[in-house]
Amino acid sequence: MIPLLDHFIEIRKKTTQLCTPLSVEDYIPQAEEFTSPPKWHLAHTTWFFEKMILSEFLDNYVPFNKDYNFLFNSYYNTLGKRVLRKHRGLITRPSVAETYEYRTYVDENITTLLSKTVPEKVKQLVILGINHEQQHQELLVTDLKYSFSLNPTNPTYDTHSNLVGEPNNSSGWLTFSEGVYNIGHSSNSFSFDNELGRHKVYVHNFEISNALVTNGEFIEFIEAGGYTNFNFWLDEGWSWLRNEKIDSPLYWKKTDGKWFYYTLAGLKEVDTNAILAHVSYYEANAFATWKGCRLPTEFEWEIASHKTDWGKRWEWTNSAYLPYPGFKIKEGAVGEYNGKFMVNQMVLRGSSVLTSIGHSRNTYRNFFHPHFQWQFTGIRLIKEL
Amino acid sequence: MIPLLDHFIEIRKKTTQLCTPLSVEDYIPQAEEFTSPPKWHLAHTTWFFEKMILSEFLDNYVPFNKDYNFLFNSYYNTLGKRVLRKHRGLITRPSVAETYEYRTYVDENITTLLSKTVPEKVKQLVILGINHEQQHQELLVTDLKYSFSLNPTNPTYDTHSNLVGEPNNSSGWLTFSEGVYNIGHSSNSFSFDNELGRHKVYVHNFEISNALVTNGEFIEFIEAGGYTNFNFWLDEGWSWLRNEKIDSPLYWKKTDGKWFYYTLAGLKEVDTNAILAHVSYYEANAFATWKGCRLPTEFEWEIASHKTDWGKRWEWTNSAYLPYPGFKIKEGAVGEYNGKFMVNQMVLRGSSVLTSIGHSRNTYRNFFHPHFQWQFTGIRLIKEL
Amino acid sequence: MIPLLDHFIEIRKKTTQLCTPLSVEDYIPQAEEFTSPPKWHLAHTTWFFEKMILSEFLDNYVPFNKDYNFLFNSYYNTLGKRVLRKHRGLITRPSVAETYEYRTYVDENITTLLSKTVPEKVKQLVILGINHEQQHQELLVTDLKYSFSLNPTNPTYDTHSNLVGEPNNSSGWLTFSEGVYNIGHSSNSFSFDNELGRHKVYVHNFEISNALVTNGEFIEFIEAGGYTNFNFWLDEGWSWLRNEKIDSPLYWKKTDGKWFYYTLAGLKEVDTNAILAHVSYYEANAFATWKGCRLPTEFEWEIASHKTDWGKRWEWTNSAYLPYPGFKIKEGAVGEYNGKFMVNQMVLRGSSVLTSIGHSRNTYRNFFHPHFQWQFTGIRLIKEL
Amino acid sequence: MIPLLDHFIEIRKKTTQLCTPLSVEDYIPQAEEFTSPPKWHLAHTTWFFEKMILSEFLDNYVPFNKDYNFLFNSYYNTLGKRVLRKHRGLITRPSVAETYEYRTYVDENITTLLSKTVPEKVKQLVILGINHEQQHQELLVTDLKYSFSLNPTNPTYDTHSNLVGEPNNSSGWLTFSEGVYNIGHSSNSFSFDNELGRHKVYVHNFEISNALVTNGEFIEFIEAGGYTNFNFWLDEGWSWLRNEKIDSPLYWKKTDGKWFYYTLAGLKEVDTNAILAHVSYYEANAFATWKGCRLPTEFEWEIASHKTDWGKRWEWTNSAYLPYPGFKIKEGAVGEYNGKFMVNQMVLRGSSVLTSIGHSRNTYRNFFHPHFQWQFTGIRLIKEL
Repeated sequence: MIPLLDHFIEIRKKTTQLCTPLSVEDYIPQAEEFTSPPKWHLAHTTWFFEKMILSEFLDNYVPFNKDYNFLFNSYYNTLGKRVLRKHRGLITRPSVAETYEYRTYVDENITTLLSKTVPEKVKQLVILGINHEQQHQELLVTDLKYSFSLNPTNPTYDTHSNLVGEPNNSSGWLTFSEGVYNIGHSSNSFSFDNELGRHKVYVHNFEISNALVTNGEFIEFIEAGGYTNFNFWLDEGWSWLRNEKIDSPLYWKKTDGKWFYYTLAGLKEVDTNAILAHVSYYEANAFATWKGCRLPTEFEWEIASHKTDWGKRWEWTNSAYLPYPGFKIKEGAVGEYNGKFMVNQMVLRGSSVLTSIGHSRNTYRNFFHPHFQWQFTGIRLIKEL
Repeated sequence: MIPLLDHFIEIRKKTTQLCTPLSVEDYIPQAEEFTSPPKWHLAHTTWFFEKMILSEFLDNYVPFNKDYNFLFNSYYNTLGKRVLRKHRGLITRPSVAETYEYRTYVDENITTLLSKTVPEKVKQLVILGINHEQQHQELLVTDLKYSFSLNPTNPTYDTHSNLVGEPNNSSGWLTFSEGVYNIGHSSNSFSFDNELGRHKVYVHNFEISNALVTNGEFIEFIEAGGYTNFNFWLDEGWSWLRNEKIDSPLYWKKTDGKWFYYTLAGLKEVDTNAILAHVSYYEANAFATWKGCRLPTEFEWEIASHKTDWGKRWEWTNSAYLPYPGFKIKEGAVGEYNGKFMVNQMVLRGSSVLTSIGHSRNTYRNFFHPHFQWQFTGIRLIKEL
Repeated sequence: MIPLLDHFIEIRKKTTQLCTPLSVEDYIPQAEEFTSPPKWHLAHTTWFFEKMILSEFLDNYVPFNKDYNFLFNSYYNTLGKRVLRKHRGLITRPSVAETYEYRTYVDENITTLLSKTVPEKVKQLVILGINHEQQHQELLVTDLKYSFSLNPTNPTYDTHSNLVGEPNNSSGWLTFSEGVYNIGHSSNSFSFDNELGRHKVYVHNFEISNALVTNGEFIEFIEAGGYTNFNFWLDEGWSWLRNEKIDSPLYWKKTDGKWFYYTLAGLKEVDTNAILAHVSYYEANAFATWKGCRLPTEFEWEIASHKTDWGKRWEWTNSAYLPYPGFKIKEGAVGEYNGKFMVNQMVLRGSSVLTSIGHSRNTYRNFFHPHFQWQFTGIRLIKEL
Repeated sequence: MIPLLDHFIEIRKKTTQLCTPLSVEDYIPQAEEFTSPPKWHLAHTTWFFEKMILSEFLDNYVPFNKDYNFLFNSYYNTLGKRVLRKHRGLITRPSVAETYEYRTYVDENITTLLSKTVPEKVKQLVILGINHEQQHQELLVTDLKYSFSLNPTNPTYDTHSNLVGEPNNSSGWLTFSEGVYNIGHSSNSFSFDNELGRHKVYVHNFEISNALVTNGEFIEFIEAGGYTNFNFWLDEGWSWLRNEKIDSPLYWKKTDGKWFYYTLAGLKEVDTNAILAHVSYYEANAFATWKGCRLPTEFEWEIASHKTDWGKRWEWTNSAYLPYPGFKIKEGAVGEYNGKFMVNQMVLRGSSVLTSIGHSRNTYRNFFHPHFQWQFTGIRLIKEL
């Protein structure tokens, strides 16, 4: 197993590498309150290590800059006041260069800390920080795509990869029998608190698709009037669609009878064989209804995960994001990581083409509000028996 | 068992009786988009019988007024366009008197229909219409309380009953063992489609309070800084509280150091022994967290219901409103009754002092968005073992 | 000249007469924050006499109900807190009948007061109250029309009069020479403070239309693409039109190629000879631009008023509502009548078919925000020389 | 007189010089829809020369980049669709460097054009473009100050100048007699269309303050309860103040009993001798009312301008921004420059410490909505005789 310090350094480097294609200008804007600028992601993940670990456990540690706790705290009430979320794109100072200096400074101090023997608690926090950084790696590129998509010149992040998801060769339905299953994380390896603890769930017979829905299949839904027939939609989904004038997945646009979408490699014609992405829970649910199917619960998904081909898209489940039996919010700032968001969100399982390699696992619980399309979100179907 | 026609007549009369204390003026206003005027409730429940039953199954039935389908359809897309929800309080014509004539006309025609042998399907629709009417009986008074509360003169609906909930003598904790339980409606009696079908759920050990939280207990929470300490709150609850300036249950007001609340009998001093009402899910959840407890899931609630003292308040559960295994939305307008609302809402179990007698049962699934306070909603706690 | 008490009684009766066609239900709703319910108009005008006159000048006067100052104060900060403007439609109690009793009580007390010799100041306040009541007579019916128009059954206020404005036979242009003119009220008769004082204004040569624009002329504008060509519109007008999806005067609707409008006598085909009503300042300005003309300033309007045929529609001018030279806000509540509204509104001159007879005069300054359409507002043109 | 080409080059350089203190990051953010990023100002002013002049009058001119017309058009409907105003801060590409290349390219082409004999029309457009550029020089720094102020670290633009306005030594009142005055631009030099034509206005006797209100005087207003007494405020001003929680000029903050304000040199203690800035029209009007004075009309201001000490702050007048007699909107894009904004705004006269030297004159009509504080706006008083 890779030593902790090496793992730390590798993951930190990966974040920097993701920024290689960026100009200084690209680091700054925040397109919407729910997205964040690349520079902020770089600084916030660094602040996480500084505030949660260095300030607590490294003797005589001097914070890089006393203002950064205000500037780069995301949502930890325990750790004090912070800049308004919607103002993250206005903080042009510190500069991008200073932000990289901040990263270096913190990396050096973490290196110092980990070069000696540290208590298990510190190791766990470093691992948490690494996983936190990986989450922000994905968010950084996801948010960037959203921001770039609003530039009518369709800027390019990486011309070699449009990250649309590889053609999907698996197919068919997998059958599972009803009974009591164990759900949740159990091994000694890292997991977030929301995956704990391992517990029993009774699941009924179900049949689950091995393959994710493709763009081509979703175009059939569109062409069958999927966005104009209320029968397929949840009531709030139907309101959302009409208020926001939604008639396709995010980034899609029909020109001269052909579907195009904005990708990180620029504007491309939609690849009908590729896996669908950028649909909201409402769209996923409507598609499933149109198909005479439904979405899996997160338990069905986890049970099936040992046999399915997953990992190319975050998959909407029909489970609300709620605590597992015995879930307890931890004391202190770390307790604010997951538990306080357990209402009004739906669980997504799997991972996406943007997810840091090795970050996800089959007990991983991602979660977003049902109207969000900007993540790489796709659809897997359940046929009820 | 009471014959169907008698049951129909009895329930229809009950609605009218609830309106006895109202002036003509009281029938008109709609305080917020989520509430409806008394007159609208009277007419909409009548329209439900007319549109779902008489127009379909009574030969040569002539609708009372062709405009009413537009005016009194609530949310059935299948049944055509309708007046904007927020405009329900502007429809002064038909008059209150004409609305009562409408009720009489439909009652007479339902009587004619039920006087002959009718297919089982019709009977089932009449039973659905009766249950629908009972739901609106509760809504009518709940909405009226909300509307009256905004009149600074604290109007009185009924001086004899302030409907605050009787003192709660039961107490203590009931223990249940883990295992597979059957959940959902199974008998031949009426239920809504969202209670079906009977299915297995694995539930872990739990201990549930026999009594509901009282006003006095909730005042302790307030006095302990419950509304000013973010640690007790879900993140969206904390935002809600700060944006809406919430610092107590709905209708509460502190004057000269004493808590008062608006009741249907006017402004009263808060009865500390009475059962708490008018808290949002956010407040219920925060209170439970402060107590070191949690809210029950709807499954725990249903399992415990055979032993608990319930029926005085709708009780927030920690379960999101989602379909049971095998749930299918029915074809046609009836399919829009429940299924399309299964997102972003929390399940409430039990019934309240305003619920029509005999209407609820221990498999009944009520549901509201987590920020709503205007229903008679209370709190039951779970101690995890 | 009619004695003051007789005048008072006559005007008070007129308000009641305007309500003859109303059902009790019609008295209640408030369609939008900028409109008020009929019952509120009845009570507020009564409160004006009670609060401004009886409470101050009638010995031992006992207010009819101590809550009414809170309920029926419109916008006088000097006179204390008041019900939120948007909640006027929720105040079902006092009832309509009690509101009429309130009117009777106040009328009797004013009668008692005026039966003796009263100081000039009191007389002036009674005259102000009478003029205030007349303003609300017009508002009552204007607001009612707005409210009724949102009922899809097109309720009828008065089948004999649709109040669309008589055919307009006058025509041609009137020419005026440049020079210094006296503007504003000067005689001893009543005027509002905003018409004072008589002052000099230099006006350049202008040519003004004798006739107001008709519906037929406005249809030409629509058919010429008036609502789709930005060149005719002020920038804020163009935004307003697009955000609010405006494509005709208020109450207009095209069905099967014909224009219809909601009138107080129900839905009617648009009378092309009748005077146009229910256009915003933005529409008035755009129409004038399309014609190669402009709107008159309020000074041009007043100068021309001695020769023009006016009195059938409030006429948008191109003058902002600002104080005349020497304008001073009076001390006390009366000072809040006009002066505090002198920003962001445009002056309208003339009167409408709904204006109380004898209420307006050629120095009268009415004022509304430029986007409002719900008043009986029309267009007169200026050709610049 | 300086040759046109030299003048062009000088003004273009000035814009670039203003950006000297900026980091690349500083060029990007847009704080609010009503402000724009520095990069956008640089590009938009360049686009103005390209689109209005080079594309029309330079043979074989090749636009620098075909996308820029979409990206850098501000509000000219005549010139086609454009990026949403609120998205100006998301356009990270073109880069800052490319934007400077764009400037160089256009400057070279304008130089080519002006090196030959050009028609008078072209000269007039170049002069318009120069004046347009000067307006954006002021906006660039004004918008930057707003954006910087939202960074809690109080970034510095220029440590040597906080631009608070020099101490004001002039004082006393100047008296003017009533009569007909000539108002508006008349000489052959450049003016905007809204200053034309020279026309007669009758003005009554007035007495105007020679000095602008200082910070110290405004603190007296605050300490006298100016922000908590409705009597001083226009009704919309009072609503604005309460909704937006305004209790001081923009950028002011009271700490430990002392007033501080954010300046372009960082956070400073308020200089009580310096001229007040960053007040809305509502605040200016309220201050004047509190003083028993009023604001000047734009005509009084212009008449007095020959004797007053002006040029340190834009001064709110009590005149609405409306067309002068004979004002005609020009054909084509240039017609959209001023005329379409003539509603709901108030005229400001003078110039500020940020105004490009030589740009303003005593007939200049600046205009903003009455709630805006972010310009360098101050107060001059009128005593009525």
